[in-house]
Amino acid sequence: MTSSDKPGNAAAASAKTTEPTGATGVAAQDWTTAAADPQYRAAVVDLLGALAYGELAAFERLADDAKLAPTLADKAELAKMASAEFHHFERLRGRLAEIGEEPTEAMEPFVAAYDGFHKQTDPSDWLEGLVKAYVGDSIASDFYREVAARLDSDTRELVLAVLDDTGHAGFAVEKVRAAIDADPRVGGRLALWARRLMGEALSQSQRVVADRDALSTMLVGGVADGFDLAEVGRMFSRITEAHTKRMAALGLAA
Amino acid sequence: MTSSDKPGNAAAASAKTTEPTGATGVAAQDWTTAAADPQYRAAVVDLLGALAYGELAAFERLADDAKLAPTLADKAELAKMASAEFHHFERLRGRLAEIGEEPTEAMEPFVAAYDGFHKQTDPSDWLEGLVKAYVGDSIASDFYREVAARLDSDTRELVLAVLDDTGHAGFAVEKVRAAIDADPRVGGRLALWARRLMGEALSQSQRVVADRDALSTMLVGGVADGFDLAEVGRMFSRITEAHTKRMAALGLAA
Repeated sequence: MTSSDKPGNAAAASAKTTEPTGATGVAAQDWTTAAADPQYRAAVVDLLGALAYGELAAFERLADDAKLAPTLADKAELAKMASAEFHHFERLRGRLAEIGEEPTEAMEPFVAAYDGFHKQTDPSDWLEGLVKAYVGDSIASDFYREVAARLDSDTRELVLAVLDDTGHAGFAVEKVRAAIDADPRVGGRLALWARRLMGEALSQSQRVVADRDALSTMLVGGVADGFDLAEVGRMFSRITEAHTKRMAALGLAA
Repeated sequence: MTSSDKPGNAAAASAKTTEPTGATGVAAQDWTTAAADPQYRAAVVDLLGALAYGELAAFERLADDAKLAPTLADKAELAKMASAEFHHFERLRGRLAEIGEEPTEAMEPFVAAYDGFHKQTDPSDWLEGLVKAYVGDSIASDFYREVAARLDSDTRELVLAVLDDTGHAGFAVEKVRAAIDADPRVGGRLALWARRLMGEALSQSQRVVADRDALSTMLVGGVADGFDLAEVGRMFSRITEAHTKRMAALGLAA
């Protein structure tokens, strides 16, 4: 089976429209119906566990990075983002409990990847922290949007609700731009930093993809027999491309 | 003037009832009326600034201490407290803006005291972090309750609303008790730690009291001509006593 005759490709192509129109397959089903397939169920538990721990880890790191803030108002902005991530975590954890899963168990498989990412990308100053907040927020949005179209209606609703509440990092853009205007050399350093962030995110994601079959299969467009790593690669490419465009708009040649 | 003939002493005695019955003086007035007195206004701006920065600093330190958590569920509990503190901060900051004050300016005078406290009381392990969360939460509640009776009705409402939402540290009690049961020597170490927390809190508070005349005058029971340091001392004594009782109940002889 090649990737081109998989039903998932249509969903992937329309991934930008968050509410699939004329949904078919899993997207047309509610959770109870879709979860009758144990592989789909396992994939969603993985997804919710991965997103939940991602939000908890983001909370922790943003709160940490708030220490680098030059002013109290800046500190408060990063703290606000951190608090928003915590509420996302609460919703995702709540959903895991609702479907009868132990949230901690669902999160455990993803701890190493996120912790590894954050350990490798500890910002050394406030601007690096801002770029990381913005990049992290944007990649999360892209990923939530990509994945939404592949989900049953109940899970999709939750993912879109959490997505709807992201975008707290807008304040970062203005500050980073001002810093580059004031000293163009800053742009070169931050461009390197943004590349490192994306590289580390990709390498940790690929580790997760390799480890978690059910999740990866769903990510490429529904549960099929086996999955095509190339299609996961294409999803990562789309996210990377969007990232590159955002960085260019920010004045950071990627 | 001795402390015994100050109008504030009655308020101090009834400070445990959070809604003063038959309120007189400032407590019977709304913000607009009370704030016509510039000294009262300055005291409330100081109070809101001090509470706001205290909540922001608490957010930051709790998020930091969450790193020490032995399990994901424990981490989430501390993160939840941190997030609650952030929302308190938002309310207090919002109120400062509402009354036409620059929140950052109102907070600045208290940054050194809080940062000094947290720097001196950096927990070295999870149990110390829990005791600190519990002690901090409890002292904050006691202080909010003490001060509420001395405030105009609008400010009192805000302070009581924030107070109402504290008490997230209850989970800490159970964990600390279990740890002491498992190894009684832990109790001795944590008792010392709790004493250090309280000592450091008192020393930083006294620094604030000495620096901020308007605030201190209000704390002893309404704006009067000058204030009696001994009455502030008695308020600190009441809070310390409540702390000592809580520590004893927790199995930590103070």
